[in-house]
Amino acid sequence: MSEKDKLVSRKEDFNEWYNTLVLKADLADYGPARGTMIIKPYGWSLWQNIQSALDTRFQATGVENAAFPMFIPMSFLQKEAQHVEGFAPELAVVTHGGGEKLAEPLVVRPTSETVIGQAYADWIQSYRDLPILINQWGSVVRWEKRTKLFLRTLEFHWQEGHTAHATAEEAQERTRLMLDVYADFAINEAAIPVIRGTKSESERFAGANDTQTIEAIMGDGKALQSATSHNLGQNFARAFNIQYLDHNNQLQYCWTTSWGLSARFVGAIIMVHGDDQGLVMPPRLAPIQTVIIPIYRKETDKSAVLAAANRIKSELSEARIRVKIDDRENLSPGYKFNDWELRGVPARIEIGPRDLAKNSVALARRDIPGREGKQFVSQEGLTEIVSNLLQEIQQNLLDRATRFRDDNTHDVHNYDDFKEAVKTGFARVWWAGDNEEEQRVKEDTKATIRCFPFDQPGGSGTCFYTGRQADKIAIFGRAY
Amino acid sequence: MSEKDKLVSRKEDFNEWYNTLVLKADLADYGPARGTMIIKPYGWSLWQNIQSALDTRFQATGVENAAFPMFIPMSFLQKEAQHVEGFAPELAVVTHGGGEKLAEPLVVRPTSETVIGQAYADWIQSYRDLPILINQWGSVVRWEKRTKLFLRTLEFHWQEGHTAHATAEEAQERTRLMLDVYADFAINEAAIPVIRGTKSESERFAGANDTQTIEAIMGDGKALQSATSHNLGQNFARAFNIQYLDHNNQLQYCWTTSWGLSARFVGAIIMVHGDDQGLVMPPRLAPIQTVIIPIYRKETDKSAVLAAANRIKSELSEARIRVKIDDRENLSPGYKFNDWELRGVPARIEIGPRDLAKNSVALARRDIPGREGKQFVSQEGLTEIVSNLLQEIQQNLLDRATRFRDDNTHDVHNYDDFKEAVKTGFARVWWAGDNEEEQRVKEDTKATIRCFPFDQPGGSGTCFYTGRQADKIAIFGRAY
Repeated sequence: MSEKDKLVSRKEDFNEWYNTLVLKADLADYGPARGTMIIKPYGWSLWQNIQSALDTRFQATGVENAAFPMFIPMSFLQKEAQHVEGFAPELAVVTHGGGEKLAEPLVVRPTSETVIGQAYADWIQSYRDLPILINQWGSVVRWEKRTKLFLRTLEFHWQEGHTAHATAEEAQERTRLMLDVYADFAINEAAIPVIRGTKSESERFAGANDTQTIEAIMGDGKALQSATSHNLGQNFARAFNIQYLDHNNQLQYCWTTSWGLSARFVGAIIMVHGDDQGLVMPPRLAPIQTVIIPIYRKETDKSAVLAAANRIKSELSEARIRVKIDDRENLSPGYKFNDWELRGVPARIEIGPRDLAKNSVALARRDIPGREGKQFVSQEGLTEIVSNLLQEIQQNLLDRATRFRDDNTHDVHNYDDFKEAVKTGFARVWWAGDNEEEQRVKEDTKATIRCFPFDQPGGSGTCFYTGRQADKIAIFGRAY
Repeated sequence: MSEKDKLVSRKEDFNEWYNTLVLKADLADYGPARGTMIIKPYGWSLWQNIQSALDTRFQATGVENAAFPMFIPMSFLQKEAQHVEGFAPELAVVTHGGGEKLAEPLVVRPTSETVIGQAYADWIQSYRDLPILINQWGSVVRWEKRTKLFLRTLEFHWQEGHTAHATAEEAQERTRLMLDVYADFAINEAAIPVIRGTKSESERFAGANDTQTIEAIMGDGKALQSATSHNLGQNFARAFNIQYLDHNNQLQYCWTTSWGLSARFVGAIIMVHGDDQGLVMPPRLAPIQTVIIPIYRKETDKSAVLAAANRIKSELSEARIRVKIDDRENLSPGYKFNDWELRGVPARIEIGPRDLAKNSVALARRDIPGREGKQFVSQEGLTEIVSNLLQEIQQNLLDRATRFRDDNTHDVHNYDDFKEAVKTGFARVWWAGDNEEEQRVKEDTKATIRCFPFDQPGGSGTCFYTGRQADKIAIFGRAY
């Protein structure tokens, strides 16, 4: 990269750093219609790895995939009162089709509780049909005013799971189970140490009785809600008549849940792990885990170097390491190093004529830039070395992010300290406020309750804001 | 199944057989908005297997996946004259978003040549950026008047590949390469013996110079266009300014292609292989390849039978056979046999107390119903037996479908024989007609030119319709 292509530093302008990086690293581009985005092959490959890691976990809990239509009759949205109130301002509406004005406008789904609720009402007859556990991968549309690549776009890619159960207990268990699936994925695949907890009433999903969330802290100290799981109680069951005959042949309403994780999670990966050189991909999700840079000046060295590079590539591929050789002509090794650093490839192998002579390679790790992260290792047993290094990087990223989160989570007991804390991170506080008081704190400080963590200290304390006795801890932060 | 649930026979009413089967076999259901469909888990699992088989093949040719927005500004569609003419009558139009009327209406993509063309124009600078080979999995919308599950729905799932090249030759090679990929997939994964060829001018994609197709014959003798590959020449490159600097630093227009296969292919699988008992899944794509039915009357036999069933399941799973135990209570074995036959599971293992005593199982193959397709085999080496059987079924389905196609493809030399032939199958004829004559044949007989097969006899003959000398053979048929 030339000087003018350099990224601004994260300290200087985190927002600008992010926007530039997404474009430069070829993750995504802007679409032609306002607020839409194109996910480019490198970004899509990351999203596919996320999909695959989640899908395996979903299936292990008995969930199957299906596909529901993107068009929903406007009247469906209106069946659940809170739901329509929440989503009406964000709808995209199809009024014309096939050259004619439609009798009833169609909404492009903002989420699919309604259309799936209607289907479940048709499909479910008796307790034998329960539980029903379906997930769908796709995209939905919400008319956002201020958009940002991956984090907030008119159309966004996600998965939405929808389940129906015979009892309230089962629905609550499923809500928590899927949240735990998300947390396991975030921690063990994305190396993002999320906080699990419950949303406050005012931050709940429109139509839910309980919204659970995983919250992550980004590199600038702001929070990103990374996935949510909702216990919808019988709200949608009553709105759509999702009923079943129980063992006593009595008609009962089902209990339903829904849960989703979107491609904004890509934004979390960028903002948690990225540094001033660019992306840092967690190895388990990285589209390319190792890049090999063949280095030669003389044409006479070329074939031997490329042969060795190809042999190493084969060996790594055999061990299921996702590997690529960068054999682009007319680009210097230095350019290539920077380029793959920008793209966050976890490990880099450099191989030139001198390495050939010594039967070694240079091996650089992305999480520790510069000389410190570079070692010379033998070509013997290289696959195992690389494989171990990738695991080490994965662990290091998680450790680093966990330290960052902990260093930037402050237990505070008064409003002044609170205001200071949420400027750069999370505030962990006793909270006894009501919705209105929560709203006032938000207006004052831009900080919202990210969640009441499942992990509570027990006992009680004094609410930092109201001074009232509180029986639970909340995490506050400014959020994306 | 009870008597009333029985399928109508294919002979009696093929159309009714198809529609009922799709619903009964839990492949799909109708969506609430007219013409939309829900793909249920069993149908979606089949589509996922299709996706995976195709995706592997695409990647082997250097194609990468990405995602482009579903909303396209109306003005984009208008940039390529033939394209807008072809698609304007079928558009779904979003006129309102976020509670406001939009300044420019957005179209829900009917296909993505325009939005991708615009992106390529931005991304491509020089010959070094070429070729660009991108595919997208997703859904598109075309406002169809008469709809039919899987075959023709307002929204349909598909993949669309879009490539840009430096030369006309490369674009033509890519067009053919992807058609060959589709043919290879159809024949070797779906056991559908397709005919590869070129579309007539009047059947070309709107905006293409050359449309290539794979055509399959359904169980009722009608044709199904199963995938297409288009050489778009420089039409979209000129409309969207997709240009590159060549080796001489001269600005040149690119040559582009697009190619797609949709979930209507599921319809082809149903209509090619299905019989009066229901679906017959080609083993390589079957969501469930083998079902195990544990049989016991006495509770005392239950645990031993289930233990054996589970052991067999583990062994088959280990060999990567997709296997399921049907241990539903309160359903008779006979009911289960019919149920899995309806769903087209290729192989069925029955195991009861007597089988346990003899260390054997009953093994039934779906492609040969009844006693003839059932054998008693030892539990020793069962995995290999099942694995071989699945391969045999795959081959048998292909052979059978090939015979059916050949038996129902008639070389005809006059219009009377032609009319007879297209009532029940394909007519293979010398053709020298023009667009108008082609249109007249269609109005007369409902048959259209499915393709000019790549596989031509050479030489020339007399056109069955115009009496003029013709230098190529065409396949006519009535199409879905």
